[in-house]
Amino acid sequence: MTSLKDINPRVRTITVSSQSSLQILAEDIKRDIAKGAKKSFKDTIDVSSGDPHRTGIKPVTFIRQVLAICLYPQLLNEESLPLDVRLRAQRLLESCDGESVGSYTESSGLRHVRQRIAEFITRRDAGVPAYSKNIFISCGAQKAQMVIVKLLSRGEGHLQTGVLTPLPCPHTLPMLLEEAGVKAVSYLLEEERQWAVDLKELHRALSTSRGCCVPRAIYISNPGNPTGHVQDRKSIQEVIEFAAAEKLVLLVDEVYQDSVYAQNQEFVSYKKVLFEMDKVFRESVELISFHSLSCACVAECGLRAGYMEIINMDPEVMNFVDTMLCTDISTPVTGQLALDLMLHPPQPGDSSYDAHAQETWFLRATLFQNAERALKVLNDLPGVRCQPAMGGIYLYPCLHLPLEIREEAETTRLEADVWYCQKLLEEEGLIIGAGGTPGSHHLRLSVCVPPDTLEEVLSRLSSFHLRLINRKAQDRALVASNRRSCKTIRSEPLMI
Amino acid sequence: MTSLKDINPRVRTITVSSQSSLQILAEDIKRDIAKGAKKSFKDTIDVSSGDPHRTGIKPVTFIRQVLAICLYPQLLNEESLPLDVRLRAQRLLESCDGESVGSYTESSGLRHVRQRIAEFITRRDAGVPAYSKNIFISCGAQKAQMVIVKLLSRGEGHLQTGVLTPLPCPHTLPMLLEEAGVKAVSYLLEEERQWAVDLKELHRALSTSRGCCVPRAIYISNPGNPTGHVQDRKSIQEVIEFAAAEKLVLLVDEVYQDSVYAQNQEFVSYKKVLFEMDKVFRESVELISFHSLSCACVAECGLRAGYMEIINMDPEVMNFVDTMLCTDISTPVTGQLALDLMLHPPQPGDSSYDAHAQETWFLRATLFQNAERALKVLNDLPGVRCQPAMGGIYLYPCLHLPLEIREEAETTRLEADVWYCQKLLEEEGLIIGAGGTPGSHHLRLSVCVPPDTLEEVLSRLSSFHLRLINRKAQDRALVASNRRSCKTIRSEPLMI
Repeated sequence: MTSLKDINPRVRTITVSSQSSLQILAEDIKRDIAKGAKKSFKDTIDVSSGDPHRTGIKPVTFIRQVLAICLYPQLLNEESLPLDVRLRAQRLLESCDGESVGSYTESSGLRHVRQRIAEFITRRDAGVPAYSKNIFISCGAQKAQMVIVKLLSRGEGHLQTGVLTPLPCPHTLPMLLEEAGVKAVSYLLEEERQWAVDLKELHRALSTSRGCCVPRAIYISNPGNPTGHVQDRKSIQEVIEFAAAEKLVLLVDEVYQDSVYAQNQEFVSYKKVLFEMDKVFRESVELISFHSLSCACVAECGLRAGYMEIINMDPEVMNFVDTMLCTDISTPVTGQLALDLMLHPPQPGDSSYDAHAQETWFLRATLFQNAERALKVLNDLPGVRCQPAMGGIYLYPCLHLPLEIREEAETTRLEADVWYCQKLLEEEGLIIGAGGTPGSHHLRLSVCVPPDTLEEVLSRLSSFHLRLINRKAQDRALVASNRRSCKTIRSEPLMI
Repeated sequence: MTSLKDINPRVRTITVSSQSSLQILAEDIKRDIAKGAKKSFKDTIDVSSGDPHRTGIKPVTFIRQVLAICLYPQLLNEESLPLDVRLRAQRLLESCDGESVGSYTESSGLRHVRQRIAEFITRRDAGVPAYSKNIFISCGAQKAQMVIVKLLSRGEGHLQTGVLTPLPCPHTLPMLLEEAGVKAVSYLLEEERQWAVDLKELHRALSTSRGCCVPRAIYISNPGNPTGHVQDRKSIQEVIEFAAAEKLVLLVDEVYQDSVYAQNQEFVSYKKVLFEMDKVFRESVELISFHSLSCACVAECGLRAGYMEIINMDPEVMNFVDTMLCTDISTPVTGQLALDLMLHPPQPGDSSYDAHAQETWFLRATLFQNAERALKVLNDLPGVRCQPAMGGIYLYPCLHLPLEIREEAETTRLEADVWYCQKLLEEEGLIIGAGGTPGSHHLRLSVCVPPDTLEEVLSRLSSFHLRLINRKAQDRALVASNRRSCKTIRSEPLMI
């Protein structure tokens, strides 16, 4: 029998994130509840990752209606469905071989959809042209990232490819880099400046990497996952200049581009800024931007589709992007079609326009209001400090935990925030993400949930947190009183 | 700019198959036609791979109706849709988090669907039990194969993992093995015995591999892709004994298990045979069986789903299967649901039963009749010899081409069968697969197409083939007559 020692050493060393161990614990709890076990909560709620439908956010009707017709084209004659919905379905079906979503597509995606993505980008960037030949559709943005990182992956030891990655970063990124065989070189984001990118820190990270690996790319998440930071033009330009000077490929995760909600803040793409810069940058900086169907407003995570736009890559190298996508044969067709629908919503005059505009407005308003509401509740908790988010779907509060809690966590060999999240799950059935920033303790929670779910989340989190803190305060008081009774009075600093 | 020399050396050496170059040529031709170029054909037809919907095979109504409802649950109240369809949709929606196909699933797939797959396998194998914990759903069977092969991949040079692979084999397999970094060790199938697996040949292949690599698995395609061979119990048992003796993991591609049509022939799974064997085999042979939604009868290639069942694998190693599936986050949910529908069709008494039974009967009958019809036409062509297929979707005729043609192909540095297929595409707009068996020349054509499309395919192929042969015969006659006129008469053997 194949044993652990016989398997691929690169696979064997992949570390499963704390997220996975929480999910396993959650599954056990759900199973217990299903078997009738008595708990103080009736169900688990998971806000640890961006999966809005799971928590009850409703799918966008327009997208679902068109896809239902594409799957069952007899519905084209169903007059209860809006005319524009049926026309869009007809057009999308025509773009599929044999007019069926059951046919394979080219490995880089349907030509029609790639063309439509290019049109969307051109419009978004106020006329900076995009070309379908530079667009590659994949089974999620993560798959596209894997293809690029694997392409850049080479060498061993100090010759191994390095990628500059933010701390904190999307929680799935470390495993992806590990599987691709590249070394992550962390640069710290500045928590006190709402998690901004700091140029000096990029230089510091880069210089520490020399001799340990060969840094060949820098990964940026904008709007930030999990920080909620949105970069302004100046910051983007600085990063581009840095990448150009250091000959790094720019990997820009822009999956939350449609979810910027802070006042006086807007999403500006790296590509737009690049094309406003001098020719020497415009024509040389290798930029790859990722977008996804799983993003905030559409949130069709289960349909699995994303894409990347590649700028300034050697065409010969680009051929290998296609080759690598080939091994998946093709991206799920329903997901590809949904990309078209996400990027080209109904227009004024279309029968679905009003309903669609209202639905998406409501979703954005929910996201914005939830972020404000959660921020307030979190910052009212003792020992919790949260930066306001400008976009994306997460809040990422910092935990300042009393020494006793940190010590208790240490006995279980867990980081204190991971330990905190395990307890929270066990006691309240609430799944919140943990960690990601060594040396400090953080939580990650998605606010892309229905408002009543958010209230439930905040209530469970608050009551757990206060209970934990009070329990520890009581323990402390007890210790102190014991000490007093032993006549050994000592003053202790308040930890929270 | 990243240049070719900077990219992952393992990626750089992946060879694009002749299939890909044919597809690129086909795209050019299609574009020319769209631009109004005059051709002797009005469109291209692609029967080079298994993509039935592309050629006009209709999707199975039951599956599409249920999926349409799952995407747009308001259709649950649509009384024009059959009751059993609506009930199935309701049940499947309940198995999704948030009752939405837009939610992620566990990386190994929805629990409900994995359970249903296990039930199907247990029924198929007359009671040999299957367990959902051993079932892993993935974005296509190819993805599942990639996970396993990567898991086994290790070492360099003579320590590199080797996998025994059939010749001919599925045309996507060589690239998959190359990307995973394992060495393919070919064993020849016996054309004259309808492409049977020959035990002596397995031993020969294995012994040649010693010293070149470390053989750790054997890949079997049954029913055979592209051969159409279906193994009997005895042959399967021999292979299992061989794998057991040589400590090889058995990777069994059984994606065409529902498409065995030869008389007195049935599909028997490797698992069933294994569980009829002695305990020493039953409890030790590592067996992984792959199945797919893209198979013949359902043919939902574009929805992207497949699964594998893993038998006798060390649980610690199996954890890494899960870890590796994690990087894709989750398999497209519509595809997962379609697996359930494929494996559990409507039953007698259900409102959809009659229509569904008729549709799938018609599909199987088409496949069977097409295979018979194509076999006859192919074997009537001079210089073509085709073994009858017992199952699957391909015919794989052998080409005995005249010397002049082989020489002409040689001047273009193409194998004669690849050259033949290029010419066929240019002159007739017909895309047929080529090659796969060094030292001889073969074509690969799918017969899972509508009967009138098959007639068109055979007509284009026949007219091209006869024209080519006659052209060469005329050239030969001309040469001969020139020679005669020069008084140098020589007899030449007839090549075809």
